[in-house]
Amino acid sequence: MGLFSKDIHTLNDLFVHTLRDIYYAENQILKALPTMVEKASDAQLKQGFTIHLDETKGHVQRLEQVFRMHGVEISGVDCPAIDGILEESDDIAGNIDDKEVLDAALAAAAQAVEHYEITRYGTLIAWAKRLGRSDCAAVLQQNLDEEKAADRKLTAIAESKLNLRAVG
Amino acid sequence: MGLFSKDIHTLNDLFVHTLRDIYYAENQILKALPTMVEKASDAQLKQGFTIHLDETKGHVQRLEQVFRMHGVEISGVDCPAIDGILEESDDIAGNIDDKEVLDAALAAAAQAVEHYEITRYGTLIAWAKRLGRSDCAAVLQQNLDEEKAADRKLTAIAESKLNLRAVG
Repeated sequence: MGLFSKDIHTLNDLFVHTLRDIYYAENQILKALPTMVEKASDAQLKQGFTIHLDETKGHVQRLEQVFRMHGVEISGVDCPAIDGILEESDDIAGNIDDKEVLDAALAAAAQAVEHYEITRYGTLIAWAKRLGRSDCAAVLQQNLDEEKAADRKLTAIAESKLNLRAVG
Repeated sequence: MGLFSKDIHTLNDLFVHTLRDIYYAENQILKALPTMVEKASDAQLKQGFTIHLDETKGHVQRLEQVFRMHGVEISGVDCPAIDGILEESDDIAGNIDDKEVLDAALAAAAQAVEHYEITRYGTLIAWAKRLGRSDCAAVLQQNLDEEKAADRKLTAIAESKLNLRAVG
């Protein structure tokens, strides 16, 4: 069902709409991650994606908890942003033969996903606080902290472990 | 023309492809910002968008400089990620009547844009260095620094200035 953007009149409506946006996004990421695990060659990158797959399942559950705490129906709304980010990732990852170059592309794609989530959680936390829902903000903060940690891990892997040959 | 993802074999190919991705993205942002300036009500937010419009023109020019330094054709490739982010922003911004709620939505949309750019520039800088192009990395770093500063400004405006009434 969801709340359509034409029904947004208050900050609370905007909060619920954005909660549904990130709920849809987390579920799409959950579907995309197994392919990324499979395609990654570097052991650390593969392990990082596997761990993040488990974390993402937890993020979906925490979002469902926030829906319940806030007394609104658990549902998603289309999120063209995450669809676009994942489409780009799929397109790139489906067309690179060299394993090391593919790993670099996968790590970059995952970082784009993390950054989308980081910005949305940051916004949701600010709005939850303004709405007097520091309880919801605290749950969302746990997801944000894990997304930031995942991004830091990806940066470290991308910068140190993938010892790419720069053959132009 | 562009480089299609099926032509990516080396890290250099991936670097050029991603450079074209962010070049397309910056140009799309350049088209989107005047509407955001127009729609914003809060004076500080409006001014922030206006300043960022000027900065974005500079980013496009710096990217063209990097293309020339690296000896490749200046061109963009489709970037479904930024298209999705801007589509979502358009959809939301086109449907909110309340000025303060609209400002909150606009600031959040702009932050999603900034985060996409931050992740792409971070990746491009790491790859440029690995390719031995610290000269290109230095130019890209200037764009990254401005995107990060713009994101910090938006966060400050979103958290302190938009004194929204939380009418649920």
